[in-house]
Amino acid sequence: MCRWVAYLGSAIRPQELLYAPEHSLIRQSKTSKFNDNGLNGDGFGMGWYDGLPAPGVYRSTTPAWSDRNLREICAHIECEIFIAHIRAGTGSPVQETNCNPFRYGRWIFVHNGFVAGYERVRREMLLAVDPKFFANIEGTTDSELLFHLALTFGLESEPLPALERMSGFVEQLCTHYDTPEPLQMTLGLSDGEQIYAVRYASSREVNTLFVSESVESVRALYPENEHLQALPPHARAVVSEPLSQLPGVWTEVPTSTALVVSQLKLQSLPFRPQRV
Amino acid sequence: MCRWVAYLGSAIRPQELLYAPEHSLIRQSKTSKFNDNGLNGDGFGMGWYDGLPAPGVYRSTTPAWSDRNLREICAHIECEIFIAHIRAGTGSPVQETNCNPFRYGRWIFVHNGFVAGYERVRREMLLAVDPKFFANIEGTTDSELLFHLALTFGLESEPLPALERMSGFVEQLCTHYDTPEPLQMTLGLSDGEQIYAVRYASSREVNTLFVSESVESVRALYPENEHLQALPPHARAVVSEPLSQLPGVWTEVPTSTALVVSQLKLQSLPFRPQRV
Amino acid sequence: MCRWVAYLGSAIRPQELLYAPEHSLIRQSKTSKFNDNGLNGDGFGMGWYDGLPAPGVYRSTTPAWSDRNLREICAHIECEIFIAHIRAGTGSPVQETNCNPFRYGRWIFVHNGFVAGYERVRREMLLAVDPKFFANIEGTTDSELLFHLALTFGLESEPLPALERMSGFVEQLCTHYDTPEPLQMTLGLSDGEQIYAVRYASSREVNTLFVSESVESVRALYPENEHLQALPPHARAVVSEPLSQLPGVWTEVPTSTALVVSQLKLQSLPFRPQRV
Amino acid sequence: MCRWVAYLGSAIRPQELLYAPEHSLIRQSKTSKFNDNGLNGDGFGMGWYDGLPAPGVYRSTTPAWSDRNLREICAHIECEIFIAHIRAGTGSPVQETNCNPFRYGRWIFVHNGFVAGYERVRREMLLAVDPKFFANIEGTTDSELLFHLALTFGLESEPLPALERMSGFVEQLCTHYDTPEPLQMTLGLSDGEQIYAVRYASSREVNTLFVSESVESVRALYPENEHLQALPPHARAVVSEPLSQLPGVWTEVPTSTALVVSQLKLQSLPFRPQRV
Repeated sequence: MCRWVAYLGSAIRPQELLYAPEHSLIRQSKTSKFNDNGLNGDGFGMGWYDGLPAPGVYRSTTPAWSDRNLREICAHIECEIFIAHIRAGTGSPVQETNCNPFRYGRWIFVHNGFVAGYERVRREMLLAVDPKFFANIEGTTDSELLFHLALTFGLESEPLPALERMSGFVEQLCTHYDTPEPLQMTLGLSDGEQIYAVRYASSREVNTLFVSESVESVRALYPENEHLQALPPHARAVVSEPLSQLPGVWTEVPTSTALVVSQLKLQSLPFRPQRV
Repeated sequence: MCRWVAYLGSAIRPQELLYAPEHSLIRQSKTSKFNDNGLNGDGFGMGWYDGLPAPGVYRSTTPAWSDRNLREICAHIECEIFIAHIRAGTGSPVQETNCNPFRYGRWIFVHNGFVAGYERVRREMLLAVDPKFFANIEGTTDSELLFHLALTFGLESEPLPALERMSGFVEQLCTHYDTPEPLQMTLGLSDGEQIYAVRYASSREVNTLFVSESVESVRALYPENEHLQALPPHARAVVSEPLSQLPGVWTEVPTSTALVVSQLKLQSLPFRPQRV
Repeated sequence: MCRWVAYLGSAIRPQELLYAPEHSLIRQSKTSKFNDNGLNGDGFGMGWYDGLPAPGVYRSTTPAWSDRNLREICAHIECEIFIAHIRAGTGSPVQETNCNPFRYGRWIFVHNGFVAGYERVRREMLLAVDPKFFANIEGTTDSELLFHLALTFGLESEPLPALERMSGFVEQLCTHYDTPEPLQMTLGLSDGEQIYAVRYASSREVNTLFVSESVESVRALYPENEHLQALPPHARAVVSEPLSQLPGVWTEVPTSTALVVSQLKLQSLPFRPQRV
Repeated sequence: MCRWVAYLGSAIRPQELLYAPEHSLIRQSKTSKFNDNGLNGDGFGMGWYDGLPAPGVYRSTTPAWSDRNLREICAHIECEIFIAHIRAGTGSPVQETNCNPFRYGRWIFVHNGFVAGYERVRREMLLAVDPKFFANIEGTTDSELLFHLALTFGLESEPLPALERMSGFVEQLCTHYDTPEPLQMTLGLSDGEQIYAVRYASSREVNTLFVSESVESVRALYPENEHLQALPPHARAVVSEPLSQLPGVWTEVPTSTALVVSQLKLQSLPFRPQRV
């Protein structure tokens, strides 16, 4: 059970969300909630957009709580969009190439969840990746393959339909191997323009996902809270678990839902895996 | 709050205590008890005696639960004595030179606890180390300085009195800086012949320490337990927390107590810091 | 251009070959010869047989020259067979799962060389691996795929023919992609009983490989050399480059040759890739 | 023999000097000149000023040539001043806290060279550090102690005299221990306003140091060179060894010389250690 945070809005330093909040992502690396033992100590990664053609990516196997370089970088870079992820491994080796986010061109991708019975379907998932994306695969996780399957199914031109096809393909494949409840996932993606987020699972139990309310409404709720008053307008965060316990700030994303987040609006759409 | 395990007996592979038990030290790296958040993810170290003049030492900042090399080594080396330690840092950097055990000649040393207000007394502790041991200091922890102060106060010739002088010195020094309850410690040491263990704190609350009962009595209690029946005779383990929940196997070491463990006997002695 | 050392004989501590010689493998990590810049700083690995059913494996991305744990382990383990490898990466990420040796069951495998145009044939090499060995692939190097192709072609039952089929398959595949001179390799393998070594390339230029003369003849040549006089009888080493400059100790292995080394004898056989 | 690069001028991305040039610092990590084996593989560090009150610092023990995070950071941060350093260790452990630069408040510091017989004077150097700077010492190198002695002797108010006192103190101390030619150093420092650089040794042989000519003169020399024509005006670099072989671009700094570099001017002053 990993944890992730995505931000879109006026340029900020990532430390504002990753270190400052009472229940920040870095704190969640030691003590996340909604989780068995609360530990996400198997690596960290962050992708960010700062106006350059390609996003930056920092990934490390040092537990996030003791990574000094991460603290420096989060205090010094400024970006309009970033997605950060802390990993709790489920079998694949702890190495940078297994840390989220994964990147292809302008796109970055993070995943919290798993493909059930992954060891049985890994080879077929890999074969289904379009050869033109193959050389970009450097690790061994299910998460990285979900991303490359989404690319194969057209992520760059039709993001949400491609994610629905990828999900449908994986469910179909696992069903073929008699694996019940194959897919458990929240996804966070960006192309540098928008953030796409998905909450979905083949089972009843679905990993949590939350989106922040509009900055205006949050400010109105907490007129005395300096931190919230200082938030840039049009900012949104999508998170695995709330960064604070303030009522009215975080809204749970319904299951089987996709979000499209831009500076202008927040769209919520049904997410339905498509058989391919 | 670190955790450690010391073993003395016929030669075994360390995996027998570090991986096999239901609540093994490696499991404690994620979920120790008697502890705030149960996490000891800031490094691992092990020292062992296998008949060579000097003990071997393996130290790593990879969390113990995901260190593949550790698993290999613990399955392949064999030793009559070993002490292993998982670290939960209290401020000093996570680096190999800050991982226990520390080694000098034939001696190895592990510590669970802290010197209160360490940043105020670090310089004076360092100055009090005999210059002849100074070059052996490679890290920045209070634990390493406790060891080198014990060496300075005669550890090699009079182990327990030297530890009492070291403790008295540190308490005196901290008192000078108005630090209440300066010392919290369990210590594990070996010279390759015996294991020395100490449970002591300046405060009422004292870190836990347990010693295993004699193999004979443990076997008699659990005639059906294959694992226990296979234990070598004359083996003893001293541990921060029990490796199993079997009643009658683990005895709590009283506070202000030192143990001296050899193949022949288990001695329990009062431990009283001496002002120097 | 990596470097490797394989040893078979009476049990020794690996430090005897990895640290002690004037031009030891650890020295070669900084300054190997027959090599562009002499640097092999992209990781280390060692597999060893010490009587247990499975070989031990230690792999690390710390440059060999500064890896303190490696020094400890090489001084403390004892083994009848070991193969050690220092890596000079040719593009794949520096991570433990890309360090040689690779292991499957009783087998370990190291490779010095490359598959030319690997990025073009990687996917097809991967697909050609028998699904039953697929889950054992954890990294992204050509070396690891050569090993799993050899397993696919029957390594466990017919070692040398399987290596010849693997080589033929790779040459055929690369030819299909118009890659001239596809294969450059020295290989070192063991099943715990024997060492298999291969020197082969599709091109005229072939990576170096040497085998030590019999201990008796080496002793006779250097009656005053204490180090050589102390060598165990029936010991052999196969190395990418000689560990010393003593004339008469090291013999170059001819190109297109396979060696089979046991305690009883040294066999030299022609090595001819087989189309499959 | 480490290597370092300091830059001051209009804001640039560090990759312009660390990756792009034909003999960039990252290339020097594998193949520096003026050097025994040309290898600087024992860690990397960079400090930079980007308008925030405190400089950022990134340090890593991964060899610079294979550090992917470093490549990302150097492509994404922008700064008016930076100093980067690649380490070739001379005995102290390879760990982040032993990587240059060292930081205190607004200051950063790098060193190429050594204190001869360091193990004999380390303790006294450490004792001579003002207790108020003591808690900032986290590693075990001579370089870090040179910095903290300079702070002790007034670096923050009188930079060059403090460096001269520091040097005099160390020479005096080593002389007391009968160490001939105690000090070998090039130093690079910044307070975020200027760069201070020193070339000095107690011996005849002195580590190299070079400073770039004015951007105007360099542009005039190479009117066709796009890279040089694109340089920001008023930019200067101070380097251990030239980043290119273009005549007229790099000037050797005389021995026993200090430079003070600002956007307005380049000052060159004699550097004479002062006994304290």
